[in-house]
Amino acid sequence: MSTTDRVLLLLDDPTGLASVGIRSVDPDSEHVSVLDLGVTRGDGIFEALDAINGVAQSLEPHLARMARSAALLDLPKPSLDVYRAAVASAITESTSSHLLVKLVMTRGIEGGTATTGWVYAEPVGDFTAARRDGLRVITLDRGYRHDVAHTSPWLLQGAKTLSYAVNKAAVREANRRDADDVIFLSSDGYVLEGPNSTVILQFGSHFVTPATDQGILAGTAQAAFFEFCDASGNSTEYRRVTPDELVAADSVWLASSVRQLVPVRELDGVPRGFDRAVSAAALEYLLGRRR
Amino acid sequence: MSTTDRVLLLLDDPTGLASVGIRSVDPDSEHVSVLDLGVTRGDGIFEALDAINGVAQSLEPHLARMARSAALLDLPKPSLDVYRAAVASAITESTSSHLLVKLVMTRGIEGGTATTGWVYAEPVGDFTAARRDGLRVITLDRGYRHDVAHTSPWLLQGAKTLSYAVNKAAVREANRRDADDVIFLSSDGYVLEGPNSTVILQFGSHFVTPATDQGILAGTAQAAFFEFCDASGNSTEYRRVTPDELVAADSVWLASSVRQLVPVRELDGVPRGFDRAVSAAALEYLLGRRR
Repeated sequence: MSTTDRVLLLLDDPTGLASVGIRSVDPDSEHVSVLDLGVTRGDGIFEALDAINGVAQSLEPHLARMARSAALLDLPKPSLDVYRAAVASAITESTSSHLLVKLVMTRGIEGGTATTGWVYAEPVGDFTAARRDGLRVITLDRGYRHDVAHTSPWLLQGAKTLSYAVNKAAVREANRRDADDVIFLSSDGYVLEGPNSTVILQFGSHFVTPATDQGILAGTAQAAFFEFCDASGNSTEYRRVTPDELVAADSVWLASSVRQLVPVRELDGVPRGFDRAVSAAALEYLLGRRR
Repeated sequence: MSTTDRVLLLLDDPTGLASVGIRSVDPDSEHVSVLDLGVTRGDGIFEALDAINGVAQSLEPHLARMARSAALLDLPKPSLDVYRAAVASAITESTSSHLLVKLVMTRGIEGGTATTGWVYAEPVGDFTAARRDGLRVITLDRGYRHDVAHTSPWLLQGAKTLSYAVNKAAVREANRRDADDVIFLSSDGYVLEGPNSTVILQFGSHFVTPATDQGILAGTAQAAFFEFCDASGNSTEYRRVTPDELVAADSVWLASSVRQLVPVRELDGVPRGFDRAVSAAALEYLLGRRR
């Protein structure tokens, strides 16, 4: 990757209150303080999205989710205008037409009052094989009950935070078990989400995803998948899902912004099928999003 | 705080394999990349300790715990020699005689192979009032069963990671409830630890702390407190502790490296007493540690 297809934009003030300044800097230099709570405590939030041919996909749902994450963490309100402008600048500045764009906001330097924020864009990787052939996925205990976001909001479930070490550890556990990715289960036996994805199940022409009142993220790619379902005359539903339904379903997918849509071809070591026609058509719809 | 009493030392290679170089840099400049997994995922580990009159307190237990955290996160082994040397340099370089020293290691730049590490030292704050008069503490659900470190090690309980957003959120919840700090309970009803401290209970001449096989950190200040107990002819025990024991105990303390020892003077809104003589004597012992 060259430095012209990678873009780093620092925000003078992520809240936009003191300044709406956006500065393009060298992504290979250091721009974060060791005193920043983003690094010392993982105390911040992020979003990641695809920008294809100049279009930041599902930008507004991502910005809305970022605002929700900020509220869950009692962070100052991010200026969605500033982040929107920075995303647009990153897309314009980069020489690449297919970008992964990350939006970050931290609580800033410990003891200070200013937040830290940036937008970073780089060319996305190639997910062709995973999208076509599927992934080997294991289910892992997330340790929390499905209702923990309601009973114990300080656990920050449902917020997209920089404290993602557990999500990385879960994927390493999958790799140790000769698998590629993870579907988390609640301690009381419900299907939650992947470390970086939303779970979608197919039962004939009915498509189901775990309800977001279970301390999980509202998936932006999954929402677009449901649009695709609605447009093609299928039915969709948000509800509780049990692990045996992951076995019984005609297809299981993991939807996320960058990988977009990958089918599950093996679950907990057992091969499973998926609807290749629906998978290909939905992927085409997701990649073709113009907003 | 001046820049001469604050010291930031960057490690050329935290594993010590490629280099044992240590560079002193301006702590007010930026030295971390936005691509560092320490900030993008809270994917790293840390330790914090007190250095009083040239002595890094409980340095060896802190280094041993850092090595355990690295193993739990599948990080490369940190070079304890390099961190030991950096701590010594920080103490020598600073003009302050009472320092908070932080040791950090991250997984480094995403996609790279090198870890990132530094040691930072600054003068400690003043905890006189809290140590003498105590804190108002609330109990909060940690969401996990007490045995989750055994059943689900990918949840990283028992590792001191940079993914500490939940710990910060818990303290904000305490502040919302007009309290100062938190004692976490497991979802199945055991006393765990504070967001940044170890819980110690006194029953006459018997001192108890929650067993570390419950996904909680081995406390370095608590270990020194138990040395004090042993030396003064009292008995000590690691075991399961239930919330009603926090009410029944003669005293409850929170032990940690920087605040050292603070008594709990109010629990969940109810005033409670503590043994002022033991509290003062133990604090004096902790502050006087020469190793």
